[in-house]
Amino acid sequence: MRRHKSYLLLLAIAAFSLFYFYSGKSETKPQTIYSAALLPVKPSLNYDQNSPYIFIGGVPRSGTTLMRAMLDAHPDVRCGEETRVIPRVLGLRSQWRKSEKEWNRLQQAGVTNEVINSAVSSFIMQIMVGHGEPANRLCNKDPFTMKSADYLAELFPKAKFLMMVRDGRATVNSIISRKVTITGFDLNDYRQCMQKWNTAIETMITQCDLVGSRCMKVYYEQLVLHPEAQMRRILEFLDLPFNESVLKHEELIGKDISLSKVERSSDQVVKPVNLDALTKWVGKIPEDVVKDMADIAPMLAKLGYDPNANPPNYGKPDEIVRKKTEDVHKNGETWYKKAVEVVNDPDRVDKPIGP
Amino acid sequence: MRRHKSYLLLLAIAAFSLFYFYSGKSETKPQTIYSAALLPVKPSLNYDQNSPYIFIGGVPRSGTTLMRAMLDAHPDVRCGEETRVIPRVLGLRSQWRKSEKEWNRLQQAGVTNEVINSAVSSFIMQIMVGHGEPANRLCNKDPFTMKSADYLAELFPKAKFLMMVRDGRATVNSIISRKVTITGFDLNDYRQCMQKWNTAIETMITQCDLVGSRCMKVYYEQLVLHPEAQMRRILEFLDLPFNESVLKHEELIGKDISLSKVERSSDQVVKPVNLDALTKWVGKIPEDVVKDMADIAPMLAKLGYDPNANPPNYGKPDEIVRKKTEDVHKNGETWYKKAVEVVNDPDRVDKPIGP
Repeated sequence: MRRHKSYLLLLAIAAFSLFYFYSGKSETKPQTIYSAALLPVKPSLNYDQNSPYIFIGGVPRSGTTLMRAMLDAHPDVRCGEETRVIPRVLGLRSQWRKSEKEWNRLQQAGVTNEVINSAVSSFIMQIMVGHGEPANRLCNKDPFTMKSADYLAELFPKAKFLMMVRDGRATVNSIISRKVTITGFDLNDYRQCMQKWNTAIETMITQCDLVGSRCMKVYYEQLVLHPEAQMRRILEFLDLPFNESVLKHEELIGKDISLSKVERSSDQVVKPVNLDALTKWVGKIPEDVVKDMADIAPMLAKLGYDPNANPPNYGKPDEIVRKKTEDVHKNGETWYKKAVEVVNDPDRVDKPIGP
Repeated sequence: MRRHKSYLLLLAIAAFSLFYFYSGKSETKPQTIYSAALLPVKPSLNYDQNSPYIFIGGVPRSGTTLMRAMLDAHPDVRCGEETRVIPRVLGLRSQWRKSEKEWNRLQQAGVTNEVINSAVSSFIMQIMVGHGEPANRLCNKDPFTMKSADYLAELFPKAKFLMMVRDGRATVNSIISRKVTITGFDLNDYRQCMQKWNTAIETMITQCDLVGSRCMKVYYEQLVLHPEAQMRRILEFLDLPFNESVLKHEELIGKDISLSKVERSSDQVVKPVNLDALTKWVGKIPEDVVKDMADIAPMLAKLGYDPNANPPNYGKPDEIVRKKTEDVHKNGETWYKKAVEVVNDPDRVDKPIGP
């Protein structure tokens, strides 16, 4: 009833005319005269709900930072650091939606689905636009937004979604060894973490599938092994022209690519795409967990990772990736120094492997 | 560094020109051409951060609904129901602000104070504008926003604040007898509730004082005893012309004043301003609590309520209020029926007192 736009517009015009009429008669003139012009919330915000945003998500430690760094290297795109606040506002709204009692209270107060959507989408847009430089295509990378992909797709009908998928054993090993605190994950318990990974990725895959053709799954291993083929596929999906710079994101760190000194991946994406992170997990997982892997994390097999191969065969890297990995090892000290420069806590940076 | 607006504008223009240049050469043309015009987030939103909003707050059960109903009766003002979501977004932001670690992470990600403010204020404006009819002066009544008055005053530099103050014994008796669930209040413990009231109102008074001349304290008892004098004072403070309709809000219920069927006060503000609620609490508070009142709730004395008088002398009502109270009693059944009509749960409605 409240939501007929043309009716609202007529009402606004009527109210405005009445206001002029009224203010002439009243005892004290109201202090402010509203402009008939439409004022944007933020004058520099020339984006709206119909802008073709890009959302990158996935379980943390699945290559989401690499993905956004490679896209940040594209002249048309800006992703930037994790905003942290976007998934929290989505979480708040999701709480309201889940409680029938609360949802009913909100409807009773005129706080309808549409009103909440306009508030939540304004919040998200202001954060996306404000926390970095302008760009033709704005992109957001907060891993857990993928849990709300279906809702985001409704808020932003032209948005596209990249869901990072990675062998859960590598993800969990990275979470545990890098001490990445994630709500619900017990960093002292490999088995529990694999279960949590399984639940999280299952939810995200469901969300991505609900979004349909606007959500693309990107396998971290394939992105690392075949960056050019994958980036061509990804850019085409995003309706962006291919650009060589996405294959050398390491040259743009600190220039077009802004990194947070406190994000756990900053010291890693400083380096070129390399093979070091693919199989680090092998030999690190307790034997009893390795033995039960197929049961603990059924999503592994569903996503095409052999739960009984340690490691599975991810494929053969492109020649350029092999060379870059060699360079990372040969010039270990140089890359180590660069990595130390971009973080607050040098103790967390991987030591050079050596040639 | 990121926040120079003129610099941003120049950049946007430059980016736009570059984009045109670039899109001519690129392999695939990007699908969307951004308009150089500034698009508002919501086309019907002709309010902005500088609009003179009105915020009504206070401890729940202190007359905030009566206050907003009387203002809603004014032809220039629309408050509407409690939105419930505005205090929650303020709470979220307050959490981030309080944690030094979190705040630092956000700064590192370009999510600066200014960016958060633009997101939070957009959210609040979309809710305020969207959940009711348009009006020259938009008003919000969510009791706990008063805890964030200083921050709201920063977000909205022309906003004004009305803080409802009421004898805490009456407030607590109303919370307990009407079973109003409020986080932290133990409805089975009068003493604990008085302590909670004391803490809550202390915080709010501090906030109101920080806001200074843009926050006015309104004593519930005085509003009920002398509605005309109080409303003249309040409307002058709000730069609004006096209008007789604010003294007969009961005539506009369901017309210009929209009530929620699930709010705890709806069945009360249906009636005209009357004296029934002033001293209902007398005789309801456990004796040991009455005895220790001055120590349990030192804010009572600070606000001018004698903690040892049961009840204190609140003053003598205007003749019109005495008459309206008489009418509410004489026509008890009629008013009871009206009250039952506006709520989902008739069991909660006060039974008629009788003449």
